[in-house]
Amino acid sequence: MINISSDKLLDITEKVFLKMGCSSKDASLAANVLISADRRGIESHGAARLSGYVRLWEAGRINAKPFIKIIHETPSTAVVDGDAGLGLVVAPFAMNIAIEKAKTAGTGWVSVQNSNHFGIAGIHAMMALENDMIGIAMTNASALVAPTFSTERMLGTNPIAVAIPAKDQPPFIADFATTTASNGKLEILQRENKDTPAGWVQDASGNNSNDASELKKGGSLLPLGSDKTHGSHKGYALGSIVDIFSAVLSGASYGPWVPPFPAYVPMPENMPGKGLGHFFGAMRVDAFRPKEDYYTHIDHWISRMREAKPAPGFDKVLIPGDPERAMEKISESAGIYLNEKVYDELLELDKKLAIGFFK
Amino acid sequence: MINISSDKLLDITEKVFLKMGCSSKDASLAANVLISADRRGIESHGAARLSGYVRLWEAGRINAKPFIKIIHETPSTAVVDGDAGLGLVVAPFAMNIAIEKAKTAGTGWVSVQNSNHFGIAGIHAMMALENDMIGIAMTNASALVAPTFSTERMLGTNPIAVAIPAKDQPPFIADFATTTASNGKLEILQRENKDTPAGWVQDASGNNSNDASELKKGGSLLPLGSDKTHGSHKGYALGSIVDIFSAVLSGASYGPWVPPFPAYVPMPENMPGKGLGHFFGAMRVDAFRPKEDYYTHIDHWISRMREAKPAPGFDKVLIPGDPERAMEKISESAGIYLNEKVYDELLELDKKLAIGFFK
Repeated sequence: MINISSDKLLDITEKVFLKMGCSSKDASLAANVLISADRRGIESHGAARLSGYVRLWEAGRINAKPFIKIIHETPSTAVVDGDAGLGLVVAPFAMNIAIEKAKTAGTGWVSVQNSNHFGIAGIHAMMALENDMIGIAMTNASALVAPTFSTERMLGTNPIAVAIPAKDQPPFIADFATTTASNGKLEILQRENKDTPAGWVQDASGNNSNDASELKKGGSLLPLGSDKTHGSHKGYALGSIVDIFSAVLSGASYGPWVPPFPAYVPMPENMPGKGLGHFFGAMRVDAFRPKEDYYTHIDHWISRMREAKPAPGFDKVLIPGDPERAMEKISESAGIYLNEKVYDELLELDKKLAIGFFK
Repeated sequence: MINISSDKLLDITEKVFLKMGCSSKDASLAANVLISADRRGIESHGAARLSGYVRLWEAGRINAKPFIKIIHETPSTAVVDGDAGLGLVVAPFAMNIAIEKAKTAGTGWVSVQNSNHFGIAGIHAMMALENDMIGIAMTNASALVAPTFSTERMLGTNPIAVAIPAKDQPPFIADFATTTASNGKLEILQRENKDTPAGWVQDASGNNSNDASELKKGGSLLPLGSDKTHGSHKGYALGSIVDIFSAVLSGASYGPWVPPFPAYVPMPENMPGKGLGHFFGAMRVDAFRPKEDYYTHIDHWISRMREAKPAPGFDKVLIPGDPERAMEKISESAGIYLNEKVYDELLELDKKLAIGFFK
């Protein structure tokens, strides 16, 4: 692992986006969104993806100067066309519209077509917090997940994030793939040459597997719940809802037609929509009850949950968002630890794009 | 099992609600909502609950003549006070407001305080379908579920339902508890004197258990995912989101303070709100894209998912809502099969309330 300061990682990332042709505003925004993943300890979605974005740009699949616009709206809704821009830039644009709609209509809901990967869902949902709003963010992704009773990859890991503001307590921030385990966790086990726990993946014939490389052999990730007995039909339903809200509502591609992240994978044939899809929501807390009452009770909810009796061997119950907040503090003081492969990719990008950051 | 026609079951149920003092409109509505569970094969939430509602009414916890009203609103939101009415009546009132808001604002979102159990979530979400809207319904419930890393019951089985309209295909209707298994499934195994699969419940000390009666011994249900390795923190987050949307937004009680369903269980002390809470949403599909485009693509989404390659031993992939639709057809032609205990309770109610239905 190579240690790098958060600021330095932000800086090189921003320079890469500038070299791709992004405006300085977009490059700064995209770098901040991307590196928020590393800062929050979700290494699979941060700097590790940067060279992938560059390859998509080289392949003409990412437009560095998108004209992002609203193509349909009502007082509380909008559909945004991302013009094939970086999801890292399209998503904040769309989330801002949700927030603006919520200011007048109470809530705002924005579905997005023609976008690309947007980094971690949580960071977009969190934009609502400072506006005294609950934020929601979800996205579809290329198909790696088989529905319950199937061996075919039909859905992405389709994450859902919900950020709920609090006052004396830190906010509640849930951000999770609708699968038992994220693809990022699988990749970490692959690098370490370790088996996966049962219930994460199945092989191409639908048998349980412990092979962390099973996806490369035609296997698939399992929906949250792992199998029917343990509720995988619920994870399958959640992943489907994310896909439908993100793509069927917006005009993006869905199911097995979602564009793949690796630029070397050919685009699916007969795509039914444009690019990836996202879905965002913002709800003003005082659209439901006076702000003071809301904050009193959400703080009470969180503090009571923290006091729940811990199981033997655990010292406390966590609130969604606690682990990422703890990692953020560590990243600030101790810097970010990058996988060597990821660091080498940064050096390569630095050279290839003639940035001259690492000398 | 005792066979009874759907109409006959509706009729006796309606008469019971009339005897409780409900208006004829409310009694008819409440009976239809309640028995929709039996018709759709969710026997735990239908006639099996009727005597429980009567006992809550006898204990003064259900108001048969509620004045249900909006206490706060914006163009796309409202909070409803259910006046301690039957959730079976309060929920359709609130869902109708969500639908009316969506007609003008594009979407409508209603949080409810001071309510009671509302039957199955799906039936309320489905009210949106005939309006060309997506419907969402959720509710909190009394605490049976321990958060990840805890042995204390802090959350209910807190279900989420999402109903998505289609045209040539039947609608997509997801309706599920945010636990690995619902309490209803546990009760069925108890009656049959069978063990539960691993991962459904834990004992009072937090150990895995296969005992279907574990909840009576201080144990708890596990969040969807079963354990941390299999994503139980995601199920815990989902259950928490349902609780916060339903109760912290509305002013209902939450967490361990949600009123219990059995009338003999004393009410929790220091309740932070009024009654149970629900949350409803309605989104007009044409608030996002032209109706025809939406229906073309949702039909395409559903039909493609149906064609996913089945795993060995299964003949097809199901769409959420398929099993309940199949049961509804069977119920129409063959009637409903009631557990003998449930049937006996109906006979008792008939006698106690001097209805004279069963002679």
